Amino acid sequence: MLRKVSFVTSNVHKFEEAKAVLTQFDIELVQIPTPISEIQSDDLREIVIYKAMEAAKVVDPPFIVEDTGLYIGELNGFPGPYASYVYKSLGLRNILKLMTNISNRSAVFKAVGAVVYRENVFKIFESSVKGTIADSIRGGHGFGYDPIFIPSGSTHTFAEMVLEEKNRCSHRGRLFRKIGSFLTQVI
Amino acid sequence: MLRKVSFVTSNVHKFEEAKAVLTQFDIELVQIPTPISEIQSDDLREIVIYKAMEAAKVVDPPFIVEDTGLYIGELNGFPGPYASYVYKSLGLRNILKLMTNISNRSAVFKAVGAVVYRENVFKIFESSVKGTIADSIRGGHGFGYDPIFIPSGSTHTFAEMVLEEKNRCSHRGRLFRKIGSFLTQVI
Repeated sequence: MLRKVSFVTSNVHKFEEAKAVLTQFDIELVQIPTPISEIQSDDLREIVIYKAMEAAKVVDPPFIVEDTGLYIGELNGFPGPYASYVYKSLGLRNILKLMTNISNRSAVFKAVGAVVYRENVFKIFESSVKGTIADSIRGGHGFGYDPIFIPSGSTHTFAEMVLEEKNRCSHRGRLFRKIGSFLTQVI
Repeated sequence: MLRKVSFVTSNVHKFEEAKAVLTQFDIELVQIPTPISEIQSDDLREIVIYKAMEAAKVVDPPFIVEDTGLYIGELNGFPGPYASYVYKSLGLRNILKLMTNISNRSAVFKAVGAVVYRENVFKIFESSVKGTIADSIRGGHGFGYDPIFIPSGSTHTFAEMVLEEKNRCSHRGRLFRKIGSFLTQVI
């Protein structure tokens, strides 16, 4: 039996990545692009829990909300949970400008998801992937920081990988495999 | 008669600046350092309205909440309303690094305040000051971006001015003069 689950996100790239993973669990993902207000917090979990509560006012369960952060070690974790705003304002070139003359280019991509699977019942999942910030913008796939993030164990940026390849090693791919596995047990 | 008004802020520098202005209106300002959650928004007014609603759950009127943003033109308005987070993570040196080889160093400091003067009744005020980003970190007064912001018409950064001097030309000084003038009419 095909289970239907909503993903509350206005980001079609995130939706496509999540959909590709959940299909493997016989789950049909439906995009709900309704904008949900987010709180400012250094903690992705706080942002996601708040987002889940806000979304619950307008979306029926089962649904998923997710938030992503990019943490660059030598920049004290910048841009962190504000990755999306910083991408739109500064852009990738300015991130590379900040990284000039920095030899330690370590960074971590984190994804946190909340699954609201019944009224007022939810569960939080977290995944991350370590990597480095590339010296230049590379690749045409993906979105956001994908052209400058090289996951550990690879020589390619996320943007140099097709969706299935990125999903195998990415924070979001890992997150949605956990979510898929959980959903098959509860719905 | 001395009127008492609360300012909900954990920032003692903001409190001292506001207090100095409101004293001129015979208003005694009391700091309430309770942390209030903030939403993520590109619009300072949205952040302040939400903050006022959150603060109203725990603070009695009359009270004030305020938020500040620094908008650097050539960085598409970065860091904007995330000025505080960016200050803590990137710091001033990295802002100057982003500005290397940029000749147009124009920036605007904006402050938005909400005055909740009776239960469920509030009014919004806005002020701003134009200026430029300095070439180096200068001065020991103030806080945050003060050492790199030179208001138009001056050759000094805010951090090279004593509090009274900064208040005369700053976004926050202007804001609290508007608020003081309003408060004397309604409370």
